[in-house]
Amino acid sequence: MAVAPKPHTIIGHRVPRIDAGEKVTGAARYVADIKRPGMLVGRILRSPLPHARIVRIDTSRAQRVPGVRAVITAADAPAVRWGAWTKDQYPLATGKVRYVGEEIAAVAAVDEATAEEALALIEVEYEELPAVFDPLEAMQPGAPVIHDERPDNIALVIDVERGDVEAAFARSYLIVEETFQSALQWPAPIETIGTVAEPHPDGRLTLYTNTQTPFMARDRIAPAIGVRPQDLRIIQTYVGGGFGGKSNDDNNAIVAGLLARRTGRPVRIINTREEDFLAGPRPRVPMRIRVKIGLSREGDLLAKHLYTIADNGAYSAKAGAVTGVAALRHDTTLKWQNVKSQALLVYTNKAPTGAFRGFGNPSASWAVEQALDIAAERLGIDPLDLLRKNACTPGYVSPHGNRVTSCELIQCIDRAAELSGYREKRARRRPFIGIGVSASAHVSGKRHFGDWDGSLAQVKIDESGQVTVLTGEGEIGQGASTLFAQLAAETLGVPLEDVRVAQADTDTTLFAQGAYASRLAYVAGNAIVRAAADARDKLLALAADELEASAGDLEIQNGKIFVRGAPDSRSTTVAEVAKKALFRRGGTMIVGRGEFDSDTESHDPKERYGNESGAYNFGCHIAEVAVDPDTGQVRLLSYTTVSDCGTVLNPIGAEGQVEGAIAQGIGYTLSEGFVIDEGKILNPNFSDYRLPTCADMPPLQRAFADSYEPTGPFGAKGLGELGMDPVAPAIGNAIADACGVRIHDLPITAEKVWRALRARAEHPTETTVSHDAPPTEPSS
Amino acid sequence: MAVAPKPHTIIGHRVPRIDAGEKVTGAARYVADIKRPGMLVGRILRSPLPHARIVRIDTSRAQRVPGVRAVITAADAPAVRWGAWTKDQYPLATGKVRYVGEEIAAVAAVDEATAEEALALIEVEYEELPAVFDPLEAMQPGAPVIHDERPDNIALVIDVERGDVEAAFARSYLIVEETFQSALQWPAPIETIGTVAEPHPDGRLTLYTNTQTPFMARDRIAPAIGVRPQDLRIIQTYVGGGFGGKSNDDNNAIVAGLLARRTGRPVRIINTREEDFLAGPRPRVPMRIRVKIGLSREGDLLAKHLYTIADNGAYSAKAGAVTGVAALRHDTTLKWQNVKSQALLVYTNKAPTGAFRGFGNPSASWAVEQALDIAAERLGIDPLDLLRKNACTPGYVSPHGNRVTSCELIQCIDRAAELSGYREKRARRRPFIGIGVSASAHVSGKRHFGDWDGSLAQVKIDESGQVTVLTGEGEIGQGASTLFAQLAAETLGVPLEDVRVAQADTDTTLFAQGAYASRLAYVAGNAIVRAAADARDKLLALAADELEASAGDLEIQNGKIFVRGAPDSRSTTVAEVAKKALFRRGGTMIVGRGEFDSDTESHDPKERYGNESGAYNFGCHIAEVAVDPDTGQVRLLSYTTVSDCGTVLNPIGAEGQVEGAIAQGIGYTLSEGFVIDEGKILNPNFSDYRLPTCADMPPLQRAFADSYEPTGPFGAKGLGELGMDPVAPAIGNAIADACGVRIHDLPITAEKVWRALRARAEHPTETTVSHDAPPTEPSS
Repeated sequence: MAVAPKPHTIIGHRVPRIDAGEKVTGAARYVADIKRPGMLVGRILRSPLPHARIVRIDTSRAQRVPGVRAVITAADAPAVRWGAWTKDQYPLATGKVRYVGEEIAAVAAVDEATAEEALALIEVEYEELPAVFDPLEAMQPGAPVIHDERPDNIALVIDVERGDVEAAFARSYLIVEETFQSALQWPAPIETIGTVAEPHPDGRLTLYTNTQTPFMARDRIAPAIGVRPQDLRIIQTYVGGGFGGKSNDDNNAIVAGLLARRTGRPVRIINTREEDFLAGPRPRVPMRIRVKIGLSREGDLLAKHLYTIADNGAYSAKAGAVTGVAALRHDTTLKWQNVKSQALLVYTNKAPTGAFRGFGNPSASWAVEQALDIAAERLGIDPLDLLRKNACTPGYVSPHGNRVTSCELIQCIDRAAELSGYREKRARRRPFIGIGVSASAHVSGKRHFGDWDGSLAQVKIDESGQVTVLTGEGEIGQGASTLFAQLAAETLGVPLEDVRVAQADTDTTLFAQGAYASRLAYVAGNAIVRAAADARDKLLALAADELEASAGDLEIQNGKIFVRGAPDSRSTTVAEVAKKALFRRGGTMIVGRGEFDSDTESHDPKERYGNESGAYNFGCHIAEVAVDPDTGQVRLLSYTTVSDCGTVLNPIGAEGQVEGAIAQGIGYTLSEGFVIDEGKILNPNFSDYRLPTCADMPPLQRAFADSYEPTGPFGAKGLGELGMDPVAPAIGNAIADACGVRIHDLPITAEKVWRALRARAEHPTETTVSHDAPPTEPSS
Repeated sequence: MAVAPKPHTIIGHRVPRIDAGEKVTGAARYVADIKRPGMLVGRILRSPLPHARIVRIDTSRAQRVPGVRAVITAADAPAVRWGAWTKDQYPLATGKVRYVGEEIAAVAAVDEATAEEALALIEVEYEELPAVFDPLEAMQPGAPVIHDERPDNIALVIDVERGDVEAAFARSYLIVEETFQSALQWPAPIETIGTVAEPHPDGRLTLYTNTQTPFMARDRIAPAIGVRPQDLRIIQTYVGGGFGGKSNDDNNAIVAGLLARRTGRPVRIINTREEDFLAGPRPRVPMRIRVKIGLSREGDLLAKHLYTIADNGAYSAKAGAVTGVAALRHDTTLKWQNVKSQALLVYTNKAPTGAFRGFGNPSASWAVEQALDIAAERLGIDPLDLLRKNACTPGYVSPHGNRVTSCELIQCIDRAAELSGYREKRARRRPFIGIGVSASAHVSGKRHFGDWDGSLAQVKIDESGQVTVLTGEGEIGQGASTLFAQLAAETLGVPLEDVRVAQADTDTTLFAQGAYASRLAYVAGNAIVRAAADARDKLLALAADELEASAGDLEIQNGKIFVRGAPDSRSTTVAEVAKKALFRRGGTMIVGRGEFDSDTESHDPKERYGNESGAYNFGCHIAEVAVDPDTGQVRLLSYTTVSDCGTVLNPIGAEGQVEGAIAQGIGYTLSEGFVIDEGKILNPNFSDYRLPTCADMPPLQRAFADSYEPTGPFGAKGLGELGMDPVAPAIGNAIADACGVRIHDLPITAEKVWRALRARAEHPTETTVSHDAPPTEPSS
């Protein structure tokens, strides 16, 4: 598939979302808009305790409430455990509950009030068990055991070394060793998780649900519902944001499916906001990371040792993969040579943690990029220069085998410096005003599931000239379908308005892994471009006959097909060729097929070696802050990012992704996080859980590097997560620059800064403050 | 594509419908079940007059009714005419109305009552015009002109001669010349026509509608709505019967679309039963056919001359094609050598007529098969022997170029005779009890639209082992989707329950012509078998690697793949191979593609020569009746059919098709027909329009010939219409046999029989009674 280098008419242009109209007018069909005849309302009884044995459940009173159609408990569900990787979670709590919010029983009733009434009548007798909430405590001998098969509460151990770390530390001029704690941030999609489960008389089941990953959800949750995957159909509704939290690690769809099968009627379960906080989208895996880095006098990165203790919560799902990324990914941002990474993922009696925009990166960046800032200061090197000196470049192979193709990190750093006035601001220091820098790399897809990091697409051109992109990748609100339409339209040379993107549906679209790992633009995009190019080749072969020209000499522009360079000579149109292709002897329809599989390798869970993604995206962030010395309040004065996502396919979409990521990063840094007391989340609502608002956003500059990824669609790479990764250290570094205190545990609240300022005033020799005890060494 | 001759596990078995559960439980989503947020109700104002000029329409009072969102007239619709072939029909009456029931204006309102109230407030001033209801009168000079561009009211002229008809008549031993009139029978699907039209903010429009032909509907009606076809999406809902009447010749979907675009809100228009009678599914094209046949003394068919005057009603659509079939198709049942057929299709001020199960066949059979019965009597040959002697045989090429491949008509005749006890009953005559026979041929698809008589299908096998048939052909209640699933399952060797058939949807499925001309089993079936075989070949190639065998040696049974003849040796499964195909480097999904185009020729509208279908199906019907001499009441004592539809893919479905067709044929013969007075249908409801009920059904024998169509899927041909074609003459011939009177105009009511019996008693020399004046000769 060779794309001729002509000026693009759609790629790179500011294209409004193709679904914008549907959304702003309210026509878009979210799961809450799905109504099915005879549909029941499902509600879930959740554990009020963080750890308890279930002695007895009596549903008899609940069953007798008029209008109740079913009350189910674990006894009515398959006795299987499920999960993305580690299968440690029951559809409904079985024997024990392990966190506050865990699903114990469920009711289907004719309306919400009846369901609530029945829920209140379910009697559960618990035998409370000692609970453990802190991973460090959970690792201690004698700590309460959460899963019997894991008596040490360790869900996963990572222990990787590349090069000779000890020797490299030995020859280091400077060693910095610090411990940082990342936050239990919640993905906070504006739409809660919900499902309408519709049973069919033939035993099949259809789930309308706001999943990020319809096909993978199917294969994963079918056994938990007790149906064969081929008897489960999943239709992705419009999705009001995912951020990783809607990749089906929770029980919502399963319980809806169980109730639907039990009652024989459609059942809708839409999480309340509180339920979503307790047991919906999984919060970020919080990590306590001890980072030790060794540098030469000139600032060469010689060695790094990360020791991570990650808080898994009660069930595992993707938390292990998140921890893996935190352990190793940063080594694709900067040219680390000798690295050791040890991590323990530890069960606690809290809500399970998991996939959330950035995966493990925002935790690792928070630690490593602050350690680097400290090192720069100690070496007397500007931190921006330290990053620049060690920045990843094209052709770099990371110690873990990541092979970098395009990389414009140095360009990102230089342009960010220029756009932010970094050097002038550094030079002209003002009290309590500071500037900080950080960098990050992210993937464009990852060889995660099966030995496949690919996508499949079809592009059909029908007799009306309509072009339909058939892919199961879906749209979760991030604008993927607009990109897909652009890629197909540009490749084919047709107007964007002639392209539709079909809804992801396990029946009608091809298998797709869905939205995660910033994979859609790159992985799905490549498949779509190939499918469109295949369709174009078929079109041109037919047009060549008609125009008595060679297919290679033809060009398509705005749906018109003509001999290249002679647009006014004899011509035809895409619609005309498609119609003639069909209405003739042996007629056919032009359907292009595209397949793409990234040139990546699956990680062996022990070795963790191999190129994890087909392309890497890079970014440099510069934050400028003012710290109020009297209150500790941090105010962002400006925020500058330059991102290398290869070709910017749609500037509107790319800017939106970066802005959203920065906002989410600012929340992560300054205000967000669960407040938990004895396992109970005290702030499960948007009044108490403080998301940043418009008023918290500084003036933003979000530029894009001039970059071209040779393996990407029109030169593009992923972008969605990148902007989230380095926000916290950029702000943390700016705060340290502004007032000399460094906060080690997120979020950086005014109180923490104020206390740190006060502590520094009392003990002026210490420049950093950590609230964390250094972790114990790993036992393995 | 070669299908190995192994015993079938699914094809030929009595397979219950795959959608039966959905239907009997009420889960099936018909158009009336489609609810969209903010949906309005649309209602249509219809003409009370058969022919009038519209002087003025005042919608101002209707507009002011609270809750009314739009009132539209022709001024708000595109000024275009549309139709299947002849484009003579406006979306809303423009300038004139031409039949009672024609759409003049439409209202969209928040509810039914409001819409009705507004409808009543629309003031229309008419200038009544003289109307004409009888085609013979409409052909007279000075008759009211219905369409200005057709001052003679002639919509179509057919004039075809093959061989030397005059010479053949000259050498004939016997000439029979009679005139028969067929009935204005209504298709009577149990579900009325309806549409939910949903406008999208980007200007696109989705129609959920119970169409038989989603793709063709789109291309046809888009201009009438004023959208580009590529901006129109049509989703076929469950369909409660079509019988030709839901092939989008009416304005329902167009008016819904216009109202939706006008209001910007979803609009639902579901015809009331009365509206459906007046202007919904089009009734059969009634024909007055003068048939003249010449035979040798031995009963060889020497010549035939049909002169047909067909009643088009006010607008044409498919009536011309129906007339064409009536004019020529019978010559593929029996071996006619010299034939002449002249037909005139004439506009009248009545509801437009059109496509209805059997198309033109039931009209032509009614005439020709009775003329043959008369000839047999006069020659002293048993009518069954006359048919048998002249019956079509394999390899026959009709005078019009139809090339017959498989044909078991003689077998059908012999078995019908045997099953019915025909010869014994003929020998043992009893007063007022008679037996009659007739035969017919039908097509399996027809090269109608574009130079394509084909179908496209995809069969995808996903990683769960689910097999999905993707075709846009649709399901209209006849069981097509069950056949499709059987064909795919048998070809692949998987259990039927692993196969799904996707809903027909112009976005997600490939172009398809839809349900008409008994084409689905044969044309669509061939494409599906090819797609499944392509998928199977891909599966086996992959399995061959795994099983270290040659693909050609492998067999698939019940989803298990093994070396042929060694089912207990090493094996794998379809699901396993599909999963491995995906989850590997360069992973892919098995998607089979099938294309089929019948070996047929498009008819030049003048010459009308060429093979019209890829395969012909044949049947022999034998009816036994008792006539009450005192009342003229006809009672069916038994009814026997033997059908040659090639391989019977699903006996349950085939029997259902035949039984339904016979019931519809019995209604056509004995009770159905519009009663029209001055253009007004007096019986637009199921109380007064007399459909046969269970009580009217005689004991049925419906057997199938041992037959195999070499070009068909597993040897199958079409069947859906065949059973309708010869019912009327079989019963008519039986009545003549029973009591010596022959009724020439349908339906054969007790009154007509009684009057004929009385007339014969008064004028015993006449053996036949015709209520029709012989038609005038064609002017051309």
